[in-house]
Amino acid sequence: MALKVGVIGTGMIGQDHIRRLTQVLSGVEVAGVTDIDLARAKSAAPAGATVYETPEALITAPEVQAVVICSWGPAHEAQLLACIAAGKPVFCEKPMVTSEAAALKVIEAEVAFGRRLVQVGFMRRFDADYRRLKRVIDGGTLGAPLMYYSKHRNASVPEGLYTSEMPLNDTLVHDADISRWLLSDEVSAVEVRVPRRSTRGRDLRDPVMVMLHMASEAIVDVEISVNIGYGYDIRGEVSCENGIAALPNRPAAVVTDANGIRQAIPEDWRERFIEAYDQEFREWIVAAGAGTATGPSAWDGYAATLVADAALRAVDSGAREPVTMIDKPALYN
Amino acid sequence: MALKVGVIGTGMIGQDHIRRLTQVLSGVEVAGVTDIDLARAKSAAPAGATVYETPEALITAPEVQAVVICSWGPAHEAQLLACIAAGKPVFCEKPMVTSEAAALKVIEAEVAFGRRLVQVGFMRRFDADYRRLKRVIDGGTLGAPLMYYSKHRNASVPEGLYTSEMPLNDTLVHDADISRWLLSDEVSAVEVRVPRRSTRGRDLRDPVMVMLHMASEAIVDVEISVNIGYGYDIRGEVSCENGIAALPNRPAAVVTDANGIRQAIPEDWRERFIEAYDQEFREWIVAAGAGTATGPSAWDGYAATLVADAALRAVDSGAREPVTMIDKPALYN
Amino acid sequence: MALKVGVIGTGMIGQDHIRRLTQVLSGVEVAGVTDIDLARAKSAAPAGATVYETPEALITAPEVQAVVICSWGPAHEAQLLACIAAGKPVFCEKPMVTSEAAALKVIEAEVAFGRRLVQVGFMRRFDADYRRLKRVIDGGTLGAPLMYYSKHRNASVPEGLYTSEMPLNDTLVHDADISRWLLSDEVSAVEVRVPRRSTRGRDLRDPVMVMLHMASEAIVDVEISVNIGYGYDIRGEVSCENGIAALPNRPAAVVTDANGIRQAIPEDWRERFIEAYDQEFREWIVAAGAGTATGPSAWDGYAATLVADAALRAVDSGAREPVTMIDKPALYN
Amino acid sequence: MALKVGVIGTGMIGQDHIRRLTQVLSGVEVAGVTDIDLARAKSAAPAGATVYETPEALITAPEVQAVVICSWGPAHEAQLLACIAAGKPVFCEKPMVTSEAAALKVIEAEVAFGRRLVQVGFMRRFDADYRRLKRVIDGGTLGAPLMYYSKHRNASVPEGLYTSEMPLNDTLVHDADISRWLLSDEVSAVEVRVPRRSTRGRDLRDPVMVMLHMASEAIVDVEISVNIGYGYDIRGEVSCENGIAALPNRPAAVVTDANGIRQAIPEDWRERFIEAYDQEFREWIVAAGAGTATGPSAWDGYAATLVADAALRAVDSGAREPVTMIDKPALYN
Ligand SMILES: [Mg+2]
Ligand SMILES: [Mg+2]
Ligand SMILES: [Mg+2]
Ligand SMILES: [Mg+2]
Repeated sequence: MALKVGVIGTGMIGQDHIRRLTQVLSGVEVAGVTDIDLARAKSAAPAGATVYETPEALITAPEVQAVVICSWGPAHEAQLLACIAAGKPVFCEKPMVTSEAAALKVIEAEVAFGRRLVQVGFMRRFDADYRRLKRVIDGGTLGAPLMYYSKHRNASVPEGLYTSEMPLNDTLVHDADISRWLLSDEVSAVEVRVPRRSTRGRDLRDPVMVMLHMASEAIVDVEISVNIGYGYDIRGEVSCENGIAALPNRPAAVVTDANGIRQAIPEDWRERFIEAYDQEFREWIVAAGAGTATGPSAWDGYAATLVADAALRAVDSGAREPVTMIDKPALYN
Repeated sequence: MALKVGVIGTGMIGQDHIRRLTQVLSGVEVAGVTDIDLARAKSAAPAGATVYETPEALITAPEVQAVVICSWGPAHEAQLLACIAAGKPVFCEKPMVTSEAAALKVIEAEVAFGRRLVQVGFMRRFDADYRRLKRVIDGGTLGAPLMYYSKHRNASVPEGLYTSEMPLNDTLVHDADISRWLLSDEVSAVEVRVPRRSTRGRDLRDPVMVMLHMASEAIVDVEISVNIGYGYDIRGEVSCENGIAALPNRPAAVVTDANGIRQAIPEDWRERFIEAYDQEFREWIVAAGAGTATGPSAWDGYAATLVADAALRAVDSGAREPVTMIDKPALYN
Repeated sequence: MALKVGVIGTGMIGQDHIRRLTQVLSGVEVAGVTDIDLARAKSAAPAGATVYETPEALITAPEVQAVVICSWGPAHEAQLLACIAAGKPVFCEKPMVTSEAAALKVIEAEVAFGRRLVQVGFMRRFDADYRRLKRVIDGGTLGAPLMYYSKHRNASVPEGLYTSEMPLNDTLVHDADISRWLLSDEVSAVEVRVPRRSTRGRDLRDPVMVMLHMASEAIVDVEISVNIGYGYDIRGEVSCENGIAALPNRPAAVVTDANGIRQAIPEDWRERFIEAYDQEFREWIVAAGAGTATGPSAWDGYAATLVADAALRAVDSGAREPVTMIDKPALYN
Repeated sequence: MALKVGVIGTGMIGQDHIRRLTQVLSGVEVAGVTDIDLARAKSAAPAGATVYETPEALITAPEVQAVVICSWGPAHEAQLLACIAAGKPVFCEKPMVTSEAAALKVIEAEVAFGRRLVQVGFMRRFDADYRRLKRVIDGGTLGAPLMYYSKHRNASVPEGLYTSEMPLNDTLVHDADISRWLLSDEVSAVEVRVPRRSTRGRDLRDPVMVMLHMASEAIVDVEISVNIGYGYDIRGEVSCENGIAALPNRPAAVVTDANGIRQAIPEDWRERFIEAYDQEFREWIVAAGAGTATGPSAWDGYAATLVADAALRAVDSGAREPVTMIDKPALYN
């Protein structure tokens, strides 16, 4: 039996997930959609899907077995709490919530419910390259990880719309989450350094260098550049006691011509992570079909919120800003 | 509506395709199965699938909309002709058939039917690396392809069961098909040379070197090695007038340790081509749902049969053995 | 006419340079040697070379046209000043001197002399890989350098003899010098962070992470690891406004076997930099033959001293330690 | 004491070797030069060198201890025989001689003399990449070599001056020599195939595919392309029983920009092999100083001549043309 899913939010990312759920993946169907713009919801609704007038109506509808949240960030808290109240598995796009207090409410509700229901959309954990990298580290032959270098290089950002807070508030969460997961570790403090600015971004604070001090004392050394022009270039390298493990080049054809011997770089995040998004939902469907959730949890969403907050404090203070988490509920072990 | 598929042959490859059709892919369901061993068919049948006593019963059953043939090669001819007679789209594993005469009968029947129904299981055409390679060549900036190097290196073959004809009869078809497709060309003659034998294979004629002389006069230079021990290592490189394009390394983590800076090699064909098999069926489902077929055709199966026959003649004669095809029916353009 | 050279210090590095000057390079001969251990000097002296009883005697001997200093660091100041007093070109191994005051005296003397005489032994600047990297950056198509990543990974250090100050005092100078040279920039401040320690080094502070804040505001991000076991692994990557440029893998054969597709890593600094040492002297011989010096100067030795001092302060303070240089004399432009 | 060398032939390659002997290498000086054009010889002669009126005068001059032959090919036979008669070590550029009969005369004379005096200019054997490749193969862990792929791709040839015989007569000798050396084997037969021609070369037979059948039955599979435009691209890959070993990419900076992640290709043979030429002479100087020769021998020159002859026959006949050598004199073991 196919899992009947309701989708909240039918903007760009919501439409992409509807396409994925209806055209790419098996064992799932989109039973309902909603959006603050009901006309947009109607136009995005696949054949046979009900258009609900509100998120609450969708979440509580008996034919909706699981929910996908693609609304804007400030709406997530109430929608997640409603899903938990209804006992329904929910996939929530980043950011899970927009404040520490909201994150704690989601955790509290889920812990009270007693079973994981929430999966947060950190798709990198489902990327085959990152997974192979983690298997090498977890395999243990290289010894403990001591440094992790995460390069996050984005082709371009819209001038005017994109502000200097965004690399630390929106972009860094991917590096922070993948670092916590790769190293099986938590962030205990954050420092930010601002190198020479790229003239491509005019007044933008770009690039930024972020140090995540981990509980193990490993240091995660992040470069975020958002205006490199040449493509979308994500790299990761773990320095361990006995060796190094790194993400490979993307698998483009090896061309030799007047430009040298070379492989193309992805154009954007869609090209880079399209299979990761598919796999993310494949695993969500299996877990949601069993009434629960797997992968990145509310705890991971909470951690991401704290790291972003600390990074924003650190860029202002120039100091080492601590990240202090509550004791980890057993539900998240 | 999901496409209702009947599977003929529930051996290892049939079971793997049933898994793929039921657990991986969307828009399809396995409605029926059959096998010469009915007990095996029953055990392999997914929930809700009918077990048919004969291939003919499965093919003509009203609830079977499309057929997947995974029986042994000599049975394919009759089963393909029955599918065409029934007007049903059919996916057929390699070899399409086992003689030139049989291939011509399938082509004749399909041409008489007037629409493509047959897709042959040359899965490499669905592999993302080969597709990117073809895009580079078709893009034209490198000029015409003059040489194509296809290295087909297999970890091991079962001693005693594997004979010296097999590299030319069973293995070469993959290199021949992918070469015809990459170069948009046909094979016009075949030569075989036998280098120093690997002691790993004892009396086996291994490796073999095959030259496919193409209609364009490009030469495809194939190495088939079936006992290399270290893994399954498929490589391809096209020398063009203005440059070279090659398959990249497989995307394993880049590990640096006492063994150097290195990337793992796939263990076997399953690991190497698993995504290609998924994609092959994804595209087949779409075409079959529309009542037709796409990808490798009966014409391609016919070409593969001729190349294998010529290669077997060439290894005995030491000479250049011509490949002579009938005029290509318009259906296959 | 061959340049007649006197070598001060015939320990391991002195003997290696004597071998290089007599057996590898053209246009040079070793006319004299000396050492605090005269027996060692005699045994190291090539045929035809005079053994001098003191550095002063060697430096002032009429047949010695140029001097190579391979004595221990604290002796360099007096020997350099004597060379400058004698107006003789001098190659001086690292460290140029061991205090800021001494560095300033050497600079003052050389500036008073009015022509460059001193070349300091920062051999990386003569390495072909670093030179190609610099040509790319200087070419300008990638835009301004914003971050430079320098990974300095050493196989092992002698337990007990090697202390936690050494990575910052002795090893970092190579990364600092090559960074100043690659980026055509000066260091303005230093920060040090200490990640999780490698258990391979027991109590050793290893690895260390160093940030060199450059005058341009570019940040140099250094990892020094001295006990990685698997080899000697030097990497460098420059993030520029429009692209990245990095050192390539070392040119080992590409082997594919059960350990993957791989290239060996150098065992030690000798294997890695042997051609750089040769080239360093090739260029020194030409300049010294013309009565002057080229390459790394007393100014560069002074900068290295200041960076090491600042790094040692920074590891204790945890703060950003400024590097304040005198105005650069015109001689060094 | 420096080895006193006489250089016969002061064209482009002779001038380059004079530069190398006087400016790059140690332990050698150019004592004499000669050329059929005496004005050119005078202008090329370094300070202190005598200009001889004839090769014979140079070869027999008492102050000439060893000879470098850079004249045109047809003159080599007489000059080599004169050197052997004079008992003087001689470095001879390719081709050693231009006929089998001439090669046999040189061998006969050297064998009668009783000590090796002749080194032939196959510089690839002195290239560090090829040497590392040979060490891997000789190391034996990969098992016996079964196939060797040698790609010889040249940027461009002068239109009109360059004929279709040249790839087989002049260019192939490098691939043949390096194959014999890498595999420690002899060529027993040659086949040539002519693929689709590159339009870049108009009527030129380009590329050509050559198979060298070795005594061990290993096959060397050569591609010679002389008009690829994009650079000078030499590749080599050995397929062994248990693994593969290949030449690495040339050590250019790894640049990432809008053209992808890439390394530059050498422009021409000078850039590719400049260090190999230096090393070739370094080793020759040592051997010649000891009154003998090392590296590629008259036997190797003889083999090259036979392979070129067989290749020219094979391109006409389309058949497998045998290479039949005399019994190898003990001098060459
Ligand atoms: Mg992510
Ligand atoms: Mg295939
Ligand atoms: Mg250095
Ligand atoms: Mg050569």
